[in-house]
Amino acid sequence: MSGGGDGDSTYGRKPFRRSRSHFADRITADGRDGWPVDVGRYRLVVSRACPWASRAVISRRLLGLEDALSMAVTDPLQDSRSWHFGPYPDGRDPVLGIRFLSEAYDRRESGYPGGVSVPAVVDVPTGQLVTNDFQQITLDLATEWTALHRQGAPDLYPERLRDEIDEVMAGVYRDVNNGVYRAGFATGQAEYEAACSDVFRRLEELTPRLRRQRHLVGDTITEADIRLFTTLVRFDAVYHGHFKCNRWKLTENQVLWAYARDLFQTPGFGDTVDFDHIKRHYYEVHTGINPSRIVPMGPDLSGWLTPHHREELGGRPFGDGTPPGPVSRGEEVPASGRP
Amino acid sequence: MSGGGDGDSTYGRKPFRRSRSHFADRITADGRDGWPVDVGRYRLVVSRACPWASRAVISRRLLGLEDALSMAVTDPLQDSRSWHFGPYPDGRDPVLGIRFLSEAYDRRESGYPGGVSVPAVVDVPTGQLVTNDFQQITLDLATEWTALHRQGAPDLYPERLRDEIDEVMAGVYRDVNNGVYRAGFATGQAEYEAACSDVFRRLEELTPRLRRQRHLVGDTITEADIRLFTTLVRFDAVYHGHFKCNRWKLTENQVLWAYARDLFQTPGFGDTVDFDHIKRHYYEVHTGINPSRIVPMGPDLSGWLTPHHREELGGRPFGDGTPPGPVSRGEEVPASGRP
Repeated sequence: MSGGGDGDSTYGRKPFRRSRSHFADRITADGRDGWPVDVGRYRLVVSRACPWASRAVISRRLLGLEDALSMAVTDPLQDSRSWHFGPYPDGRDPVLGIRFLSEAYDRRESGYPGGVSVPAVVDVPTGQLVTNDFQQITLDLATEWTALHRQGAPDLYPERLRDEIDEVMAGVYRDVNNGVYRAGFATGQAEYEAACSDVFRRLEELTPRLRRQRHLVGDTITEADIRLFTTLVRFDAVYHGHFKCNRWKLTENQVLWAYARDLFQTPGFGDTVDFDHIKRHYYEVHTGINPSRIVPMGPDLSGWLTPHHREELGGRPFGDGTPPGPVSRGEEVPASGRP
Repeated sequence: MSGGGDGDSTYGRKPFRRSRSHFADRITADGRDGWPVDVGRYRLVVSRACPWASRAVISRRLLGLEDALSMAVTDPLQDSRSWHFGPYPDGRDPVLGIRFLSEAYDRRESGYPGGVSVPAVVDVPTGQLVTNDFQQITLDLATEWTALHRQGAPDLYPERLRDEIDEVMAGVYRDVNNGVYRAGFATGQAEYEAACSDVFRRLEELTPRLRRQRHLVGDTITEADIRLFTTLVRFDAVYHGHFKCNRWKLTENQVLWAYARDLFQTPGFGDTVDFDHIKRHYYEVHTGINPSRIVPMGPDLSGWLTPHHREELGGRPFGDGTPPGPVSRGEEVPASGRP
């Protein structure tokens, strides 16, 4: 989740700890938490800057849930009231009618003292936040929203592979997804070095696996690939410099760089990525580590569109399914954010 | 020069301007400024972190002036009284007997209000600063100290090439040597982008020249190579991340990377470089742009020692001369600073 825990307020106090999601209700096929899967009932609120939210943006595209679950994209820069809908007319989300995501939190729990984070799913009729549980939201999109998936949607969390997927994702979460944050928001040299070492050790451990096989687990795209991708796509643009994860650039690891390009060029991945939002968010919001708020001009992003040759490894990206169609009208990433 | 102008005190006030050297007396063969070239009379004070001082460290090695001009290496971290001799016993330079370089400035001009910078040349008998003119010091080592050069010393500033050397150096100074500082200490986005663009435009302009020829001007090592080298050797270690000059890493430009490795592996260049001093200085001193003072673990430096194949371009690095011998005892860069 990107929220209070990511902001510069964290910096300089104590070792970085990602806070647990407070609102962990689940939207399920059977509606056991009171939130049944339903067409048009919920709104997914994301920032394209945020890797945790971007998981949900990708899953929604791959599964073809665009018409069932609408999406609001916040301004990449939180202000003093956190995530807001500045880019929309009158600064209000056109569906929820609110200016700040915090308003949906307030409707759910008045005076909630925690941070406001994305991804968030909001119940449109009541305007209440349902969940900001970034670890569960995409698993539920994959397994509970199946009745609303498009024809040809992939199985992103196949039952027979869940143990392996869970194990891979746990390591990737600890050392990579969250490892870069532990490095970037470290308040001391030893804390930083431990985190930075974890990042590169894990990436180097994954490299031989991805030299042999096209995807992380099995021979199709799964949730594990989505979660690794959202960190890799940000690696050279922000984590390398801003978070000091600079042993090497992603572009210097031929295997991981080809793996990341393969996914980037797959419909549903790269077409959700806004490098402009990513760079501006990290460099402008975290004033504790970048007081000037200057956003670097680099890196050169043109390499993302170069051939990756990963198809030579075999694999069936969408299994028995098909790639998603074009991006929905109004959800295209503007040219400013594309390589 | 590395001094007040490089420190974090510069940050956040106004566009970065490198101050002119205030003490610009010249040490010459004829002694016309009152400072004749003489064996053992002067002491060169440097920081191995500082690119401007490193020019002099390299020139002194290439020209074999170690016995004629002794050298003091300061701590890489200035404290509130600027450059100091912390690493020496009792924190005092064993030749000058002072703890802070500022003492030599004070002896020259009491109450001098400007910054204290390296490189500095100090008159040992009186303890007075002679010059901190970083643009002139190396030219004088090359052209005025000739009587004391070692046998086989190269001509680093050949008369017939001076116009071309001066022209190349002027562009390299403005856009590269100082350009990285203008980018790193920029206080606004536009100022940063102008400087960062200058850096890469100039480097890209130099690339075809260095694809064709081994050295910048003529077919031998000259002052122009020394001045480009001292920025290139710091590029990935500090300028890429800390100063946000991140369009590409040096290692991604095959021509410049091979050129820099060629020089690095030439006696007198790489054996003067202390990456530990470089990284700690930039990241720990400039708290205005790195408040945490955390020093990144990267980049991987092992590539500096890989084959460069630049000898295939021809060229005669030392002209009719020879490479310098081994580093003088006591002046070796410790293992902590080597790739």
